[in-house]
Amino acid sequence: MKLYSYFRSSAAFRVRIALNLKALAYDTQAVHLVKNEQQLADYQALNPSQLVPTLVDADQPLLQSISILEYLEEAYPAIALLPKDLVDRAQVRAFAQAIACDIHPLNNLRVLKYLQHELALDDTQKNHWYQHWIIEGFRSLETQLSQSNGQFCFGTQATFADCCLIPQVYNAKRFKVDLSGFPKIESIYQHCMALPAFHQAAPEQQPDWE
Amino acid sequence: MKLYSYFRSSAAFRVRIALNLKALAYDTQAVHLVKNEQQLADYQALNPSQLVPTLVDADQPLLQSISILEYLEEAYPAIALLPKDLVDRAQVRAFAQAIACDIHPLNNLRVLKYLQHELALDDTQKNHWYQHWIIEGFRSLETQLSQSNGQFCFGTQATFADCCLIPQVYNAKRFKVDLSGFPKIESIYQHCMALPAFHQAAPEQQPDWE
Repeated sequence: MKLYSYFRSSAAFRVRIALNLKALAYDTQAVHLVKNEQQLADYQALNPSQLVPTLVDADQPLLQSISILEYLEEAYPAIALLPKDLVDRAQVRAFAQAIACDIHPLNNLRVLKYLQHELALDDTQKNHWYQHWIIEGFRSLETQLSQSNGQFCFGTQATFADCCLIPQVYNAKRFKVDLSGFPKIESIYQHCMALPAFHQAAPEQQPDWE
Repeated sequence: MKLYSYFRSSAAFRVRIALNLKALAYDTQAVHLVKNEQQLADYQALNPSQLVPTLVDADQPLLQSISILEYLEEAYPAIALLPKDLVDRAQVRAFAQAIACDIHPLNNLRVLKYLQHELALDDTQKNHWYQHWIIEGFRSLETQLSQSNGQFCFGTQATFADCCLIPQVYNAKRFKVDLSGFPKIESIYQHCMALPAFHQAAPEQQPDWE
Protein backbone atom coordinates (compact mmCIF):
# COMPACT_ATOMS: atom_id res chain seq x y z
CA MET A 1 0.00 0.00 0.00
CA LYS A 2 1.08 3.53 -0.66
CA LEU A 3 -0.20 6.50 1.32
CA TYR A 4 -0.07 9.95 -0.23
CA SER A 5 0.34 12.01 2.88
CA TYR A 6 1.43 15.36 4.28
CA PHE A 7 3.04 15.23 7.69
CA ARG A 8 0.81 17.96 9.12
CA SER A 9 -2.49 16.82 7.55
CA SER A 10 -4.93 15.80 10.21
CA ALA A 11 -6.85 13.60 7.74
CA ALA A 12 -3.68 11.74 6.72
CA PHE A 13 -2.78 11.37 10.42
CA ARG A 14 -6.12 9.51 10.95
CA VAL A 15 -5.29 7.00 8.23
CA ARG A 16 -1.72 6.54 9.46
CA ILE A 17 -3.09 5.63 12.90
CA ALA A 18 -5.57 3.14 11.43
CA LEU A 19 -2.91 1.48 9.26
CA ASN A 20 -0.62 1.17 12.29
CA LEU A 21 -3.39 -0.17 14.54
CA LYS A 22 -4.21 -2.79 11.92
CA ALA A 23 -0.48 -3.58 11.52
CA LEU A 24 -0.65 -2.92 7.77
CA ALA A 25 2.65 -1.97 6.11
CA TYR A 26 2.66 1.01 3.73
CA ASP A 27 4.99 3.39 1.95
CA THR A 28 4.62 7.14 2.39
CA GLN A 29 4.58 9.42 -0.63
CA ALA A 30 4.75 13.02 0.56
CA VAL A 31 2.49 15.65 -1.02
CA HIS A 32 3.60 19.08 0.14
CA LEU A 33 0.36 21.05 0.60
CA VAL A 34 2.05 24.40 1.29
CA LYS A 35 4.03 24.05 -1.95
CA ASN A 36 0.74 23.13 -3.71
CA GLU A 37 1.97 19.73 -4.84
CA GLN A 38 -1.65 18.53 -4.57
CA GLN A 39 -2.34 20.60 -7.70
CA LEU A 40 0.19 18.75 -9.88
CA ALA A 41 -1.42 16.86 -12.77
CA ASP A 42 -0.19 13.45 -11.62
CA TYR A 43 -1.75 13.89 -8.20
CA GLN A 44 -4.97 15.38 -9.57
CA ALA A 45 -5.37 12.31 -11.79
CA LEU A 46 -5.26 10.21 -8.65
CA ASN A 47 -7.29 12.52 -6.44
CA PRO A 48 -9.45 15.10 -8.24
CA SER A 49 -10.26 16.78 -4.91
CA GLN A 50 -6.58 17.76 -4.64
CA LEU A 51 -6.60 16.81 -0.99
CA VAL A 52 -4.64 14.33 1.08
CA PRO A 53 -4.71 11.52 1.96
CA THR A 54 -5.00 9.10 -0.94
CA LEU A 55 -4.38 5.44 -0.16
CA VAL A 56 -3.47 3.19 -3.05
CA ASP A 57 -4.22 -0.46 -2.36
CA ALA A 58 -3.94 -3.09 -5.10
CA ASP A 59 -3.57 -0.24 -7.64
CA GLN A 60 -6.89 1.30 -6.57
CA PRO A 61 -6.79 4.91 -5.36
CA LEU A 62 -8.99 5.40 -2.30
CA LEU A 63 -10.02 8.93 -1.28
CA GLN A 64 -11.32 10.64 1.86
CA SER A 65 -9.97 9.61 5.24
CA ILE A 66 -13.21 8.30 6.76
CA SER A 67 -14.05 6.34 3.63
CA ILE A 68 -10.53 4.88 3.77
CA LEU A 69 -11.09 3.85 7.41
CA GLU A 70 -14.32 2.08 6.36
CA TYR A 71 -12.48 0.37 3.49
CA LEU A 72 -9.69 -0.82 5.77
CA GLU A 73 -12.27 -2.12 8.26
CA GLU A 74 -13.99 -4.15 5.52
CA ALA A 75 -10.86 -5.31 3.68
CA TYR A 76 -8.70 -6.00 6.74
CA PRO A 77 -11.10 -6.92 9.55
CA ALA A 78 -8.68 -8.96 11.70
CA ILE A 79 -8.00 -6.03 14.05
CA ALA A 80 -11.36 -4.25 14.29
CA LEU A 81 -11.68 -0.49 14.76
CA LEU A 82 -15.47 -0.57 15.10
CA PRO A 83 -17.43 -2.39 17.82
CA LYS A 84 -19.84 -5.17 16.84
CA ASP A 85 -23.15 -3.84 18.19
CA LEU A 86 -25.02 -1.67 15.66
CA VAL A 87 -25.82 1.17 18.04
CA ASP A 88 -22.26 1.17 19.42
CA ARG A 89 -20.95 1.33 15.85
CA ALA A 90 -23.24 4.26 15.15
CA GLN A 91 -21.99 6.06 18.26
CA VAL A 92 -18.34 5.63 17.25
CA ARG A 93 -19.03 6.72 13.69
CA ALA A 94 -21.03 9.75 14.82
CA PHE A 95 -18.14 10.85 17.03
CA ALA A 96 -15.67 10.44 14.15
CA GLN A 97 -18.00 12.33 11.79
CA ALA A 98 -18.44 15.16 14.30
CA ILE A 99 -14.70 15.76 14.02
CA ALA A 100 -14.44 15.12 10.28
CA CYS A 101 -17.51 17.21 9.37
CA ASP A 102 -18.00 19.81 12.10
CA ILE A 103 -14.52 20.76 13.29
CA HIS A 104 -11.74 19.86 10.88
CA PRO A 105 -13.20 21.24 7.59
CA LEU A 106 -13.40 24.73 9.04
CA ASN A 107 -9.77 24.75 10.10
CA ASN A 108 -7.85 23.05 7.35
CA LEU A 109 -5.18 24.74 5.30
CA ARG A 110 -7.27 25.72 2.27
CA VAL A 111 -9.82 27.49 4.50
CA LEU A 112 -7.15 29.31 6.51
CA LYS A 113 -5.64 30.43 3.19
CA TYR A 114 -9.05 31.80 2.08
CA LEU A 115 -9.51 33.67 5.36
CA GLN A 116 -6.09 35.24 4.98
CA HIS A 117 -5.99 36.00 1.26
CA GLU A 118 -9.64 36.58 0.28
CA LEU A 119 -10.98 38.04 3.50
CA ALA A 120 -7.73 39.62 4.70
CA LEU A 121 -8.19 38.41 8.27
CA ASP A 122 -5.32 39.19 10.59
CA ASP A 123 -3.72 36.56 12.82
CA THR A 124 -5.94 37.41 15.80
CA GLN A 125 -9.11 37.00 13.78
CA LYS A 126 -7.82 33.79 12.18
CA ASN A 127 -6.90 32.42 15.57
CA HIS A 128 -10.32 33.30 16.97
CA TRP A 129 -11.99 31.47 14.06
CA TYR A 130 -9.77 28.45 14.60
CA GLN A 131 -10.33 28.28 18.33
CA HIS A 132 -14.07 28.96 18.05
CA TRP A 133 -14.83 25.83 16.01
CA ILE A 134 -12.54 23.61 18.07
CA ILE A 135 -14.00 24.73 21.39
CA GLU A 136 -17.59 24.48 20.15
CA GLY A 137 -16.87 21.02 18.78
CA PHE A 138 -14.92 19.79 21.79
CA ARG A 139 -17.77 20.77 24.14
CA SER A 140 -20.00 18.29 22.37
CA LEU A 141 -17.28 15.64 22.13
CA GLU A 142 -16.50 15.85 25.85
CA THR A 143 -20.20 15.27 26.62
CA GLN A 144 -20.24 12.26 24.30
CA LEU A 145 -17.25 10.85 26.22
CA SER A 146 -18.99 10.80 29.61
CA GLN A 147 -18.75 6.97 29.73
CA SER A 148 -15.16 6.82 28.48
CA ASN A 149 -12.55 5.08 30.67
CA GLY A 150 -10.12 7.93 29.92
CA GLN A 151 -7.93 5.66 27.77
CA PHE A 152 -10.04 5.32 24.64
CA CYS A 153 -13.16 7.17 23.48
CA PHE A 154 -15.46 4.14 23.59
CA GLY A 155 -14.91 0.71 25.08
CA THR A 156 -11.48 -0.69 25.91
CA GLN A 157 -9.72 -0.44 22.58
CA ALA A 158 -9.06 2.06 19.82
CA THR A 159 -11.78 2.80 17.29
CA PHE A 160 -12.42 5.24 14.44
CA ALA A 161 -13.23 7.75 17.19
CA ASP A 162 -9.67 7.71 18.55
CA CYS A 163 -8.22 7.75 15.01
CA CYS A 164 -10.04 11.06 14.49
CA LEU A 165 -9.80 12.60 17.97
CA ILE A 166 -6.04 12.37 18.45
CA PRO A 167 -5.07 14.34 15.29
CA GLN A 168 -7.68 16.98 16.14
CA VAL A 169 -6.29 17.39 19.67
CA TYR A 170 -2.76 17.51 18.25
CA ASN A 171 -3.87 20.43 16.07
CA ALA A 172 -5.65 22.15 18.95
CA LYS A 173 -2.46 22.01 21.01
CA ARG A 174 -0.45 23.35 18.11
CA PHE A 175 -2.79 26.36 18.00
CA LYS A 176 -2.55 26.67 21.81
CA VAL A 177 -6.23 26.04 22.49
CA ASP A 178 -6.88 25.85 26.24
CA LEU A 179 -8.04 22.28 26.81
CA SER A 180 -8.42 22.50 30.61
CA GLY A 181 -12.22 22.29 30.23
CA PHE A 182 -11.97 18.95 28.41
CA PRO A 183 -10.44 16.44 30.88
CA LYS A 184 -11.67 13.28 29.11
CA ILE A 185 -10.30 14.46 25.77
CA GLU A 186 -6.95 15.35 27.35
CA SER A 187 -6.75 12.02 29.19
CA ILE A 188 -7.48 9.99 26.04
CA TYR A 189 -4.94 12.04 24.11
CA GLN A 190 -2.20 11.39 26.68
CA HIS A 191 -3.01 7.69 26.79
CA CYS A 192 -3.17 7.14 23.04
CA MET A 193 -0.15 9.22 22.11
CA ALA A 194 1.93 6.94 24.35
CA LEU A 195 0.94 3.92 22.23
CA PRO A 196 3.24 3.07 19.30
CA ALA A 197 0.45 3.03 16.67
CA PHE A 198 -0.48 6.63 17.50
CA HIS A 199 2.98 7.91 18.34
CA GLN A 200 4.47 6.63 15.08
CA ALA A 201 1.65 8.26 13.09
CA ALA A 202 2.38 11.70 14.53
CA PRO A 203 3.68 14.48 12.27
CA GLU A 204 7.15 14.46 13.90
CA GLN A 205 7.66 10.81 12.95
CA GLN A 206 6.91 11.28 9.25
CA PRO A 207 9.61 11.22 6.57
CA ASP A 208 8.45 14.62 5.28
CA TRP A 209 8.49 16.28 8.74
CA GLU A 210 10.09 19.74 8.66
CA MET B 1 -38.60 5.99 14.14
CA LYS B 2 -38.55 9.69 14.83
CA LEU B 3 -36.43 12.13 12.83
CA TYR B 4 -35.50 15.46 14.38
CA SER B 5 -35.27 17.55 11.26
CA TYR B 6 -35.31 21.07 9.86
CA PHE B 7 -36.85 21.43 6.43
CA ARG B 8 -33.91 23.36 5.01
CA SER B 9 -31.13 21.26 6.59
CA SER B 10 -29.09 19.54 3.94
CA ALA B 11 -27.93 16.88 6.40
CA ALA B 12 -31.52 16.07 7.42
CA PHE B 13 -32.48 15.97 3.72
CA ARG B 14 -29.87 13.20 3.20
CA VAL B 15 -31.42 11.05 5.92
CA ARG B 16 -34.98 11.69 4.70
CA ILE B 17 -33.94 10.41 1.25
CA ALA B 18 -32.33 7.28 2.72
CA LEU B 19 -35.37 6.52 4.89
CA ASN B 20 -37.65 6.91 1.86
CA LEU B 21 -35.42 4.79 -0.39
CA LYS B 22 -35.43 2.04 2.22
CA ALA B 23 -39.21 2.43 2.64
CA LEU B 24 -38.87 3.01 6.38
CA ALA B 25 -41.70 4.92 8.05
CA TYR B 26 -40.82 7.76 10.42
CA ASP B 27 -42.33 10.74 12.20
CA THR B 28 -40.84 14.19 11.76
CA GLN B 29 -40.10 16.36 14.79
CA ALA B 30 -39.17 19.84 13.58
CA VAL B 31 -36.22 21.67 15.16
CA HIS B 32 -36.22 25.28 14.00
CA LEU B 33 -32.56 26.17 13.54
CA VAL B 34 -33.15 29.86 12.84
CA LYS B 35 -35.14 30.13 16.09
CA ASN B 36 -32.27 28.27 17.85
CA GLU B 37 -34.49 25.40 18.98
CA GLN B 38 -31.40 23.16 18.71
CA GLN B 39 -30.11 24.93 21.83
CA LEU B 40 -33.09 23.93 24.01
CA ALA B 41 -32.13 21.65 26.91
CA ASP B 42 -34.34 18.77 25.75
CA TYR B 43 -32.73 18.70 22.34
CA GLN B 44 -29.21 19.15 23.71
CA ALA B 45 -29.75 16.11 25.93
CA LEU B 46 -30.51 14.14 22.79
CA ASN B 47 -27.85 15.72 20.58
CA PRO B 48 -25.00 17.51 22.39
CA SER B 49 -23.73 18.87 19.06
CA GLN B 50 -26.94 20.93 18.78
CA LEU B 51 -27.20 20.00 15.13
CA VAL B 52 -29.82 18.24 13.06
CA PRO B 53 -30.61 15.55 12.18
CA THR B 54 -31.07 13.15 15.08
CA LEU B 55 -32.78 9.86 14.30
CA VAL B 56 -34.34 7.97 17.20
CA ASP B 57 -34.72 4.26 16.49
CA ALA B 58 -35.77 1.85 19.26
CA ASP B 59 -35.27 4.69 21.78
CA GLN B 60 -31.63 5.14 20.72
CA PRO B 61 -30.64 8.62 19.51
CA LEU B 62 -28.39 8.43 16.44
CA LEU B 63 -26.33 11.47 15.43
CA GLN B 64 -24.56 12.69 12.27
CA SER B 65 -26.17 12.12 8.90
CA ILE B 66 -23.47 9.89 7.38
CA SER B 67 -23.27 7.77 10.52
CA ILE B 68 -27.08 7.45 10.37
CA LEU B 69 -26.86 6.28 6.73
CA GLU B 70 -24.33 3.63 7.78
CA TYR B 71 -26.58 2.56 10.65
CA LEU B 72 -29.61 2.26 8.37
CA GLU B 73 -27.55 0.25 5.90
CA GLU B 74 -26.53 -2.20 8.62
CA ALA B 75 -29.86 -2.37 10.47
CA TYR B 76 -32.14 -2.39 7.40
CA PRO B 77 -30.12 -3.98 4.59
CA ALA B 78 -33.05 -5.19 2.45
CA ILE B 79 -32.80 -2.20 0.11
CA ALA B 80 -29.06 -1.52 -0.14
CA LEU B 81 -27.61 1.97 -0.61
CA LEU B 82 -24.03 0.75 -0.96
CA PRO B 83 -22.71 -1.58 -3.67
CA LYS B 84 -21.26 -4.97 -2.69
CA ASP B 85 -17.71 -4.68 -4.04
CA LEU B 86 -15.27 -3.19 -1.51
CA VAL B 87 -13.65 -0.72 -3.90
CA ASP B 88 -17.04 0.35 -5.26
CA ARG B 89 -18.24 0.92 -1.70
CA ALA B 90 -15.14 3.00 -1.00
CA GLN B 91 -15.81 5.09 -4.12
CA VAL B 92 -19.42 5.79 -3.10
CA ARG B 93 -18.42 6.62 0.46
CA ALA B 94 -15.60 8.90 -0.68
CA PHE B 95 -18.03 10.83 -2.88
CA ALA B 96 -20.50 11.20 -0.01
CA GLN B 97 -17.71 12.28 2.35
CA ALA B 98 -16.43 14.84 -0.15
CA ILE B 99 -19.81 16.55 0.13
CA ALA B 100 -20.26 16.03 3.86
CA CYS B 101 -16.70 17.07 4.78
CA ASP B 102 -15.43 19.41 2.04
CA ILE B 103 -18.47 21.38 0.86
CA HIS B 104 -21.37 21.36 3.28
CA PRO B 105 -19.58 22.22 6.56
CA LEU B 106 -18.33 25.49 5.10
CA ASN B 107 -21.79 26.61 4.06
CA ASN B 108 -24.12 25.58 6.81
CA LEU B 109 -26.15 28.00 8.86
CA ARG B 110 -23.87 28.30 11.89
CA VAL B 111 -20.91 29.20 9.66
CA LEU B 112 -22.89 31.74 7.65
CA LYS B 113 -23.99 33.28 10.97
CA TYR B 114 -20.34 33.55 12.07
CA LEU B 115 -19.33 35.20 8.78
CA GLN B 116 -22.11 37.72 9.17
CA HIS B 117 -21.99 38.47 12.89
CA GLU B 118 -18.33 37.91 13.86
CA LEU B 119 -16.59 38.92 10.64
CA ALA B 120 -19.22 41.41 9.44
CA LEU B 121 -19.15 40.09 5.88
CA ASP B 122 -21.65 41.73 3.55
CA ASP B 123 -23.97 39.69 1.31
CA THR B 124 -21.60 39.84 -1.67
CA GLN B 125 -18.69 38.48 0.36
CA LYS B 126 -20.89 35.81 1.96
CA ASN B 127 -22.19 34.78 -1.43
CA HIS B 128 -18.66 34.58 -2.82
CA TRP B 129 -17.63 32.35 0.09
CA TYR B 130 -20.67 30.13 -0.47
CA GLN B 131 -20.19 29.79 -4.18
CA HIS B 132 -16.41 29.32 -3.90
CA TRP B 133 -16.64 26.11 -1.86
CA ILE B 134 -19.49 24.69 -3.92
CA ILE B 135 -17.75 25.30 -7.23
CA GLU B 136 -14.40 23.98 -6.01
CA GLY B 137 -16.15 20.90 -4.63
CA PHE B 138 -18.38 20.32 -7.65
CA ARG B 139 -15.36 20.39 -10.00
CA SER B 140 -13.98 17.35 -8.22
CA LEU B 141 -17.38 15.64 -7.98
CA GLU B 142 -18.07 16.09 -11.72
CA THR B 143 -14.71 14.41 -12.47
CA GLN B 144 -15.58 11.52 -10.17
CA LEU B 145 -18.86 11.09 -12.08
CA SER B 146 -17.22 10.49 -15.46
CA GLN B 147 -18.60 6.94 -15.57
CA SER B 148 -22.09 7.88 -14.34
CA ASN B 149 -25.10 7.02 -16.51
CA GLY B 150 -26.56 10.46 -15.78
CA GLN B 151 -29.32 8.96 -13.62
CA PHE B 152 -27.42 8.00 -10.48
CA CYS B 153 -23.89 8.82 -9.34
CA PHE B 154 -22.61 5.24 -9.43
CA GLY B 155 -24.17 2.13 -10.94
CA THR B 156 -27.85 1.84 -11.75
CA GLN B 157 -29.47 2.61 -8.43
CA ALA B 158 -29.34 5.19 -5.67
CA THR B 159 -26.52 5.07 -3.14
CA PHE B 160 -25.18 7.21 -0.29
CA ALA B 161 -23.64 9.35 -3.05
CA ASP B 162 -27.06 10.40 -4.41
CA CYS B 163 -28.41 10.88 -0.86
CA CYS B 164 -25.68 13.48 -0.34
CA LEU B 165 -25.44 15.01 -3.81
CA ILE B 166 -29.09 15.94 -4.31
CA PRO B 167 -29.40 18.11 -1.15
CA GLN B 168 -26.12 19.83 -2.00
CA VAL B 169 -27.33 20.65 -5.53
CA TYR B 170 -30.65 21.83 -4.12
CA ASN B 171 -28.70 24.29 -1.94
CA ALA B 172 -26.50 25.37 -4.82
CA LYS B 173 -29.58 26.21 -6.87
CA ARG B 174 -31.09 28.09 -3.96
CA PHE B 175 -27.94 30.24 -3.87
CA LYS B 176 -28.08 30.62 -7.68
CA VAL B 177 -24.75 28.90 -8.36
CA ASP B 178 -24.20 28.53 -12.11
CA LEU B 179 -24.18 24.76 -12.68
CA SER B 180 -23.73 24.85 -16.47
CA GLY B 181 -20.20 23.51 -16.10
CA PHE B 182 -21.44 20.40 -14.28
CA PRO B 183 -23.64 18.48 -16.74
CA LYS B 184 -23.46 15.09 -14.97
CA ILE B 185 -24.38 16.64 -11.62
CA GLU B 186 -27.30 18.50 -13.22
CA SER B 187 -28.52 15.39 -15.04
CA ILE B 188 -28.44 13.24 -11.90
CA TYR B 189 -30.25 15.96 -9.97
CA GLN B 190 -33.04 16.17 -12.54
CA HIS B 191 -33.40 12.39 -12.65
CA CYS B 192 -33.40 11.82 -8.90
CA MET B 193 -35.67 14.72 -7.99
CA ALA B 194 -38.34 13.18 -10.22
CA LEU B 195 -38.30 10.00 -8.10
CA PRO B 196 -40.75 9.89 -5.16
CA ALA B 197 -38.11 9.00 -2.53
CA PHE B 198 -36.14 12.15 -3.36
CA HIS B 199 -39.05 14.42 -4.19
CA GLN B 200 -40.85 13.66 -0.93
CA ALA B 201 -37.66 14.35 1.05
CA ALA B 202 -37.33 17.86 -0.39
CA PRO B 203 -37.71 20.91 1.88
CA GLU B 204 -41.03 21.94 0.24
CA GLN B 205 -42.61 18.61 1.20
CA GLN B 206 -41.75 18.84 4.90
CA PRO B 207 -44.35 19.58 7.59
CA ASP B 208 -42.23 22.50 8.87
CA TRP B 209 -41.74 24.09 5.42
CA GLU B 210 -42.20 27.85 5.47
